[in-house]
Amino acid sequence: MARIAPLSGFPEWLPDGRVVEQHVLDTLRRTFELHGFAGIETRAVEPLDQLLRKGETSKEVYVLRRLQAQDDAAAPDTQADKQLGLHFDLTVPFARYVLENAGRLAFPFKRYQIQKVWRGERPQDGRFREFVQADIDVVGAGELPYHYEVELPLVMAAALGALAGVGLPPVRILVNNRKVAEGFYRGLGLDDVEGVLRHIDKLDKIGPDAVAALLVQECGATTEQATACLELAAISGSDASVTDAVRALAASHGAVTDLLETGLTELGALIEAAAVRAPGVVVADLKIARGLDYYTGSVYETVLVGHEALGSICSGGRYDTLASDGKSTYPGVGLSIGVSRLVSRLLSAGLVRATRGVPTAVLVAVMSEEDRAASDAVADALRARGIPADVAPKVAKLGKQIQVADRRGIPFVWFPGETDQVKDIRSGEQAAADAGEWAPPAEDWWPRVVPGA
Amino acid sequence: MARIAPLSGFPEWLPDGRVVEQHVLDTLRRTFELHGFAGIETRAVEPLDQLLRKGETSKEVYVLRRLQAQDDAAAPDTQADKQLGLHFDLTVPFARYVLENAGRLAFPFKRYQIQKVWRGERPQDGRFREFVQADIDVVGAGELPYHYEVELPLVMAAALGALAGVGLPPVRILVNNRKVAEGFYRGLGLDDVEGVLRHIDKLDKIGPDAVAALLVQECGATTEQATACLELAAISGSDASVTDAVRALAASHGAVTDLLETGLTELGALIEAAAVRAPGVVVADLKIARGLDYYTGSVYETVLVGHEALGSICSGGRYDTLASDGKSTYPGVGLSIGVSRLVSRLLSAGLVRATRGVPTAVLVAVMSEEDRAASDAVADALRARGIPADVAPKVAKLGKQIQVADRRGIPFVWFPGETDQVKDIRSGEQAAADAGEWAPPAEDWWPRVVPGA
Repeated sequence: MARIAPLSGFPEWLPDGRVVEQHVLDTLRRTFELHGFAGIETRAVEPLDQLLRKGETSKEVYVLRRLQAQDDAAAPDTQADKQLGLHFDLTVPFARYVLENAGRLAFPFKRYQIQKVWRGERPQDGRFREFVQADIDVVGAGELPYHYEVELPLVMAAALGALAGVGLPPVRILVNNRKVAEGFYRGLGLDDVEGVLRHIDKLDKIGPDAVAALLVQECGATTEQATACLELAAISGSDASVTDAVRALAASHGAVTDLLETGLTELGALIEAAAVRAPGVVVADLKIARGLDYYTGSVYETVLVGHEALGSICSGGRYDTLASDGKSTYPGVGLSIGVSRLVSRLLSAGLVRATRGVPTAVLVAVMSEEDRAASDAVADALRARGIPADVAPKVAKLGKQIQVADRRGIPFVWFPGETDQVKDIRSGEQAAADAGEWAPPAEDWWPRVVPGA
Repeated sequence: MARIAPLSGFPEWLPDGRVVEQHVLDTLRRTFELHGFAGIETRAVEPLDQLLRKGETSKEVYVLRRLQAQDDAAAPDTQADKQLGLHFDLTVPFARYVLENAGRLAFPFKRYQIQKVWRGERPQDGRFREFVQADIDVVGAGELPYHYEVELPLVMAAALGALAGVGLPPVRILVNNRKVAEGFYRGLGLDDVEGVLRHIDKLDKIGPDAVAALLVQECGATTEQATACLELAAISGSDASVTDAVRALAASHGAVTDLLETGLTELGALIEAAAVRAPGVVVADLKIARGLDYYTGSVYETVLVGHEALGSICSGGRYDTLASDGKSTYPGVGLSIGVSRLVSRLLSAGLVRATRGVPTAVLVAVMSEEDRAASDAVADALRARGIPADVAPKVAKLGKQIQVADRRGIPFVWFPGETDQVKDIRSGEQAAADAGEWAPPAEDWWPRVVPGA
């Protein structure tokens, strides 16, 4: 094997980076479970025809071929219905899982799912071809009450908030409601709602003047209508003033509709609940459009304060048809955290670090190979009491064995003897100890994740 | 979407099955970490030429193609060096990771890795196309002391033993040493060591007579040599009598060699240590051959007692060259648990079950939608104290809300009121409670995994 270069777009971490990632994953899992979400895992592949149902994403799919299946390779396009591709998100597999198991699930079904997904796009600035997503969704059978649209961003606020202690910057969850946008546009007389949303979604990239021009050119808007759309998109805030501002704007343009009013009631309820349960985190931002056309109610994006250029690290929304089997329709609401993107930023910006890259709290020295069994017995006694321990790779002078621990960040070295001794190699303190009783301080027991600076 | 059938060979679990799998994974991870193994995760893909280095496995590889990359599809075979495939084990990616990061790792490097792997074979009796493996390996730079060959099966014994309480049957780890087999065969005058091992590996399938015939026909053995090989393969035991028996057999055939003696010393040391640290678990079994030719010392297989037909659930061995970059060689020893196969058997044979499929311990009832905020506050108060809680999906009569909990296996329903009440819906007991103080009994706090019957 010659020298090996990393594959662009396929991130991997060194052991201490993995400690950080694992802590993020454990924290998310715990928060999701505290909120009653059941964990599931789906296979990595779906039939290609299912993955291609949303035409837009087709170019991102990795298709699988068994190496010996020459026929498949010769005529890949004619066999699309038999082919398998790697999932590019966790929503498509979840929708399939719900249909496949509908009779065995209790609805509303709350699930979290933390898995890798793959997208065959050109890797660029923080875009990965393989990355971990952490999704929560609630799906109902036939109906799904609005209050879940309030609950889900608050669960994510709790999950991300639980990482603040280790150095995750504060997050801001930006929310909007499709009914507000659609009700307002229709009230204005603009019927190409999807077109308008698609252009509004470009505001941060191309600016208001370019968006206004596009609305006029491509959505048939008058200059006044285009201006009204931009005025709506400029509204944001985290209290009732937001809905008041939208109502006033709509009234001034004669754009009040029932749909708008429904949307404002919903958005208002979300802002109100968020102000109590996660003060300062949730902000109504009327420019949030989310490109995808299947959202029908609340939509969410999340920025890391101070790292806004990273883009949204946690997005989602309400969809009236997550899945449908002809008989029943399954509406849902969900959000997805881009874990790899988040962890990559935490590590590369030095925002967090692991106190060590190995689990080991104690390295037991070995005085001679004949005494290895005694050292093993010490390590086993510590492990039996939940203390991660390892035994020195080989016999060496004490200084050398301390070096073995030091290189790995292991804080304690144990010296078996007539009376066992344990040394904190950072302070140099050494004391007699009994493997059946001694324990490391809580902060040294397991590797921890701490703020970087 | 029409009716959906599962994909054969791609196992998925319902939420209560996932609780079981997650418990297995958590237990393995904790045991590995207690023994000082650092967790890593590698990308799911490797360059195809790396995956094909062992020609034998080539037919199992899933090759990736980006859907829009027509060129790749047109000439798949000429582009093998640029193509990516899904890893079919965790050893090939680990070897690559070690070479890629050698300068940033401390050797001997102990790592565990729990990930999915993919094999494009025809699914049959318990063979999966996608499955989870849990691997531990120790890899050295240039050298790796023998004692790791003793340690690794004992770590697996501890990991699998930690699952006995939830209903995993006892395991038996069968060990052998390549040096014993090779030393004995060469002492007999048989030089086609790989050929003999390959046929001995078939003993359980085709029986001793057929193996003897193959040894004569294909390895140039005399009848007497073939019989000697079968006599060696028939030896097993868990104390020093095993090495004594091999020595006696070798002496009777004039087949004593230095290599044999080295192997017997190693095997004896393993058996002796195992008798102390994991009594009754490790058995020397001289017929264990392991088909793969890269093993150079200890080899391991593991059977579930009473489920021997399932085959080995945890296998591995010592290899002198896990990886090599021209300058350095990295010897290693490792074992791999087939987690999906194990979990599949645990579930399908009803050996274990989860006490519930949701994390939720308490469902907070909702008396009217106006009071939902009060119910949310109760749930948040419980969660803040680490108690998984959920709020009823909608307002309903109390009996209906209890039904919602009952269908999910949630043991407690909370009724907010002037004085809050909490009801154990299994016993019907109900008592006043304060969300800032009440806690469920430890056994109801989280879903548990318990023996099935």
